[in-house]
Order: sequence, then C-alpha cells, then structure tokens
Amino acid sequence: MYLIKNVRLYTGRASYERGAVITDGGRIIYAGDEASMTAPPILGGVSVIDGGGGICMPGLCDAHCHAPMVLLRGEGADLPLFDWLSCVQEMEENFTPETIYTGTMLAIMELLRGGVTSFADMYFECADMIRAVIDSGIRANITRGSTSVEGVRSHIDLHREFDGADGRVRVYVGLHGEYTSDENVARAAAETARELGVGVHVHMSESRGEVEGCIERHGVTPPAYFERIGLLDVPVIAAHCVHLTDADIDILVRHGVYAAHNPASNMYLASGIAPVAKMRARGVNVAIGTDGAASNNTLDMFREMRLAALLSKVSTMNASSIAAADVIKMATETGARAMGFDECGVLEAGRPADLCILDGGALHLHGADIASDIVYAACGADVRLTMVNGRVLYRDGEYTTIDAELMRALASSARKSLRK
Amino acid sequence: MYLIKNVRLYTGRASYERGAVITDGGRIIYAGDEASMTAPPILGGVSVIDGGGGICMPGLCDAHCHAPMVLLRGEGADLPLFDWLSCVQEMEENFTPETIYTGTMLAIMELLRGGVTSFADMYFECADMIRAVIDSGIRANITRGSTSVEGVRSHIDLHREFDGADGRVRVYVGLHGEYTSDENVARAAAETARELGVGVHVHMSESRGEVEGCIERHGVTPPAYFERIGLLDVPVIAAHCVHLTDADIDILVRHGVYAAHNPASNMYLASGIAPVAKMRARGVNVAIGTDGAASNNTLDMFREMRLAALLSKVSTMNASSIAAADVIKMATETGARAMGFDECGVLEAGRPADLCILDGGALHLHGADIASDIVYAACGADVRLTMVNGRVLYRDGEYTTIDAELMRALASSARKSLRK
Repeated sequence: MYLIKNVRLYTGRASYERGAVITDGGRIIYAGDEASMTAPPILGGVSVIDGGGGICMPGLCDAHCHAPMVLLRGEGADLPLFDWLSCVQEMEENFTPETIYTGTMLAIMELLRGGVTSFADMYFECADMIRAVIDSGIRANITRGSTSVEGVRSHIDLHREFDGADGRVRVYVGLHGEYTSDENVARAAAETARELGVGVHVHMSESRGEVEGCIERHGVTPPAYFERIGLLDVPVIAAHCVHLTDADIDILVRHGVYAAHNPASNMYLASGIAPVAKMRARGVNVAIGTDGAASNNTLDMFREMRLAALLSKVSTMNASSIAAADVIKMATETGARAMGFDECGVLEAGRPADLCILDGGALHLHGADIASDIVYAACGADVRLTMVNGRVLYRDGEYTTIDAELMRALASSARKSLRK
Repeated sequence: MYLIKNVRLYTGRASYERGAVITDGGRIIYAGDEASMTAPPILGGVSVIDGGGGICMPGLCDAHCHAPMVLLRGEGADLPLFDWLSCVQEMEENFTPETIYTGTMLAIMELLRGGVTSFADMYFECADMIRAVIDSGIRANITRGSTSVEGVRSHIDLHREFDGADGRVRVYVGLHGEYTSDENVARAAAETARELGVGVHVHMSESRGEVEGCIERHGVTPPAYFERIGLLDVPVIAAHCVHLTDADIDILVRHGVYAAHNPASNMYLASGIAPVAKMRARGVNVAIGTDGAASNNTLDMFREMRLAALLSKVSTMNASSIAAADVIKMATETGARAMGFDECGVLEAGRPADLCILDGGALHLHGADIASDIVYAACGADVRLTMVNGRVLYRDGEYTTIDAELMRALASSARKSLRK
C-alpha cells in the first residue's frame, strides 16, 4: 500500500494543485485532493511517497514501438529513407534471442525512466521480448512483425503461452504491413486474430511510396485493402496513418481503428505529417507511439506528446487545433485501450495503479496549468518515479526489478555484435 | 584550472570517443583525445572533473529569448495567436524592475541547467536583466524591444554602462519589429547601432499577417523595408524569418544577417515553418533560439535543436535536408557569432571555456554517433555541468553563483503578482 502525497495531480479526469493517490494491491483506491482524503483503512504498512510538489499523472502508453531497436540508435542518421533502411536491416540480421532480450530490457529501462507504463511492440523473437516484459514488471502488448503465413500462425503458440501473464501481457497478431506480405498473409492475420479473439498490430500508410504501391498492387489504398480483407473487423492498432484520404479516414472511423501517431519518426524519416486534427475531428481514436529508437532516437513519450501537439498546430496553421488535455488523453487512455488494457490510462479508484511522478524541482514544470506543463514543458528525464500495477519499478535512478549495470554491459556488447 | 576527462568529446571541429579538456583562467588550453594529452604545466591546483563517459560539448547559444517570460509559462496555452497575445501582454504590464530581475535570474537558472552558456535577449528593464547576467556568470547580449525613438536611444546609456562588462555582456540595439514602430524608430535604431558600433536585434517576418501588413504599409516585405532604411548595414539578429520570399533570402545573404530560427515557438503559435534548408543552401547564417518560455514552454536548446532538424526534414520531405553536425553548429558557433561572441561556440585551445557535460548514465545517449546523440536524443535535463568563461556555474542540481532556493521563492511570488 502506497500513499503518494504532495503532488500536483493530473488524473485524466480532473487536476488538483495539491493531490494524493493511495494504492493497494496493484489498484488505486484514492486519487484526488489531498485535503479531502479520508484516512485509508490501514491493514498493512503504508509506504509514504512524498512527491515534493512534482506532477503525478497516469503512466504513458506507447502505442507503437520496436523495443530492441534501442541497440540501433543513431545508425544511418540523416540518410535518405532507403539508405537508412538498408543500414538498419543489415544489422537486424545479426540479432539473436539473447540480444533481443537485452535490447528489450534496455528499452524497458528507458521507457520506465521516462514514465511509460505500457507499450505495444512489433518485432521478432517475441518469446524473448515477453520474458523481458515479465521480468521487468512493465505492461506490454507484443506482436511479431509477420511477413509470412507461418509468422502469422506463430502467434497462436505465443498467445497460448503468454497472453494474460501476470495480467500484464497481451499477445495480439502482428502483420508487418501491406507492402511486405501478400494477400494470403493478411487474410491469415485476420483469421488468426479472430480465432484468438484478439486484435491486430500493423503498419499502415506510413509513406507515400507505400500508398502508391498498394494502389498499383490492389487498386485501393491500404485502409481500403485491409477493410476488404477483413483485417479491420478485429481491434486494430494501425501505426503511422500519415497518408490518408478522406475515404480512408471514414474507414478508420467505421471500424474503430486505433491510429498510432509517431510524429518524431515521421519527421526523422521525412515520411510526412499525419492528419491528426482531421482524424480526431472525424472521430478516429488517435494514440501516440515512439516507433523504434533507430528513427526517433529516444523512447521519450513526453517529447512525443509535445511534438504531436506542435506539429498539429503548425501543420493546420491553427494554434487551437489540439489542446494539451487532448494530447495527454491520446498518450494515456487511448493508447491503453488500443493495446487492450482498457482499465489503464486514468487515475481513479478501482483502476490499475500505473502512474509516474515528475521532478518537483524542475524549473520548467511550474507553469500556469498542469496539462500544459506536461505536454509543452516536461520531458522523460524529468520523471522521478514510475509505478506499474502498484509496484514501484523506477525511482530516482534506480530500478527495483532490473540489474541495470548488468544490462548496460550486455547492451554494450550486443551493440558491437550487431555491427560486425 | 580544470581537467575534464572521461568524456565523449564533441568540439565543433572534431569528436573523440574518449576526450579531455583543460581550462585555465577562463580559456581552453587543450581539447582533444585523452590519450594524446600531454601533461599540462601545473601552476596552481588542478580540479579534476570526471565526466563519467558523458558527452562534453560547446555550451549552447540561444540566439533569441525573452528571459523574464519564464514567469508567464503556460499562460494562454492552446489559444489562437491574438488571444494568447492579449493574455500575455496584460500580465506583462504588471512587471516591475524586481520581477524582471527575478524572472531573468530564473531563466538563467533554466538555461544553465540545460547547457546554455550565452543568450541573446530582447525585453525591457534591461539594466535589471543585465544585473542578473552579471550576478549569475552567464554570457548574454541584451537589448530592449523598442517601439519608440526614446526606447531606441535608451540603448546609448545602457551600452555605456554595461557593454563589455566582465567580458560577458554585449548591448546591441533592440527594435521590436516593423509592425510595432514607424519608420523614424527603425531609422533611429539603425543610426544608434552605427553610432555605438554594435548590431541590432529585431523580430522579422514571423507571421503571415506581419508580412502582409508591411507590404500594405511600405509596399515591400520586412527584409526589403529594413534594407531600404539601412538597418541591415550593421550586424543583425533577425528573429523568426518564417515567411520569406526568395528575394528576401537574397537580402539576408547580401547583408550577412543572422536569422534566429525558433521552431518550437513558430509551431506553438502556428506562425509557420521557416525555410531553414533553403536559407542554409543559399548561404544565410541560421542560428537557433528558444523565444520566450510563454510560447515554447521551456528554454531547452537541446529540444530546440531536435525540433529544428526534424522540422526541416519533414517540411522538405528529405531526411538528408540537414545533418546533426549542421544543427549543432547553428546552436553553438553561429549563435555565438550572431551575438558578437565570436570566439565562443567551439572547444579549441585559446577560446573561452564555455561548455557543458551531459549525463554519461543516460540510456539514450549511447548511440552510433556523438552528433546524432546530441541532436536527436539529448535534452536539457541530461546536462550535469555547465561552465561559462572557465567557471562551473551549474553542477548536479547545484548553482555556484545563484541562491536557487531564494530565487524559486521570489519567482513564485512574482508569478502571483503578475496575475493580479
């Protein structure tokens, strides 16, 4: 049982200049004004966390990541897309189950250090990734970036073994994208997801070339193609959604697709600017993701929120095109629902205790309004404490479930092994 | 005398995976490979700074700021430009000399904490701002945002009293902008700068409305108007430069104008996207600035560098439109020259010791390349130490020249006094 006090509290429903949160057994039992808190029924010992006047808020939900790519950070920086891709893909061939575990764990350290409590990932060697998720205590939705029917079907064993583990792991079906698989693979992904009763995670309409190629191959845009195949009849995380027609947006709305917006990556690779304001106005569920660290080059969801807001404003030439509270919702509640963690993303009694606390001493975090401090001023390095499912996993530079020193050493060797 | 060792060194001319820097009496006497360093002639005691494997680089140069606006952080967030302006201007009327000093000092704390060693500012109550600069040990170029001939002429006394103070203060002539003054004021600014033998700091072509208004009023764009008046015959820091024609860019090149690019502010206020790639290709000196914290909402030059790079890439749809090393140069060497601190911005023997050291333990700062780590992964909160003129002003949360606790308390009261 934790009592978090002396925080500027942002719950996702309300904010309090002096708030408090009480957790018990992985759940929140109180989130609100500190002064109106009634004494909790103290059954066991209570650990008091003094937030030092820092912001306490829901943990961030990274809706699209490729965790092990932290080992490829900075590779091919500033190269045109295809040169960057071949640089990165060449190194990806050297990954082993061990380096995948190490890379995932290193990414989880960075995510926790930046206040992220759950992430949706697509990569390969998923069993090793999930072991890192389980060992670390974070929450995640893991899929393989399948490009073959066998790859798609491999989710069945993965789902049987891991879905629901510790209440923190979800296994969806991953399909890399339209342009990296034929129609049989996409149909298999839709069928497998239906069989398992889960959703799909897929790259969609990231680059202009992808959309043009899809029209050549199938006569329609990626959303229309996936709709035709039935892939959108299950819950979907569609990463990127940069190049969309109005008809595409209608398709996303019709199927309740979760668009995972990745502004840093879309800018870094010059993919384009996703029509976030338009999608939101039409009713698309827009979440936010970091993409892999090779095209970001961090896993900092605070910087991603800021970028999402700033990019929306300048691309629409409208400073009111999106508000700070909307952006926080995208990066918390909407992201959580996209991953199938429907209870997460809001700090309310009864919900899982996934939260983070920012540095009360940070000069830039004492602005006029908590929401605008979070979106426009905070960054991942401001996080002091991250809690998942009621467990403190990161606090003031220390990890409670991860041998950070060992992981840093392993990561350093892993990076070398990928470069040879 | 300081010996900085065990750092990944980026000098602005070269980089070393294990470098060292030696400073003496405010100057650098060595910057290079740690292994090839010859023992310095030890006259007095040497203080050894172990960088712990963190990046050491030139201090950042913020080429356009309104320091006291840290007290207005978050005010009017997400409002359209004119509503934001009236919200901010109403509060600005409540500033006093005391709150200007406090606000400037608070901004300097934030700048130092984020690795900034010099800044160019435009505001009012400049004598109080300069006192904060002198007291803190930072380097700055200060101007008044003049809108009248009297305001312009007030720079004469200011220059006499403060220019060159401690070798760290420059006083240029500030002209708020074309749209906030008539031709007499602009001419007075040009004349005063010539008399004093200094440069001018001016807002230019920030918004579409400003450019259209200038054409209505004067028949030409702001750069052409200022050229005609002679304002560009002295060194110029032109803040924003968002809406420029090709002919405008030619004017900037012809006069060696320093364009101060403020990507966060231009996005936040939906002003537009400055044509940075085009300006640079044509030979304009482009520096980077934060603008005031009321439209940013931080003074984090690392995040500003990242934004400058990402925005250039996506707006040109070319991932190679700008390289990390170019962005660092804009935020260091070019910025320093814009302010008249020509020796700063590069770590080389003989130059002033203005530098910062980043956290060696930061997981996101161990990518493939030092320059790309700096631009795409670092943020201000990663800074562990900031040195100006050979003095350590910030280290691990502590300020050596500023009573941080007092300043925080004063800032908190000042914020309240501005809101009434």
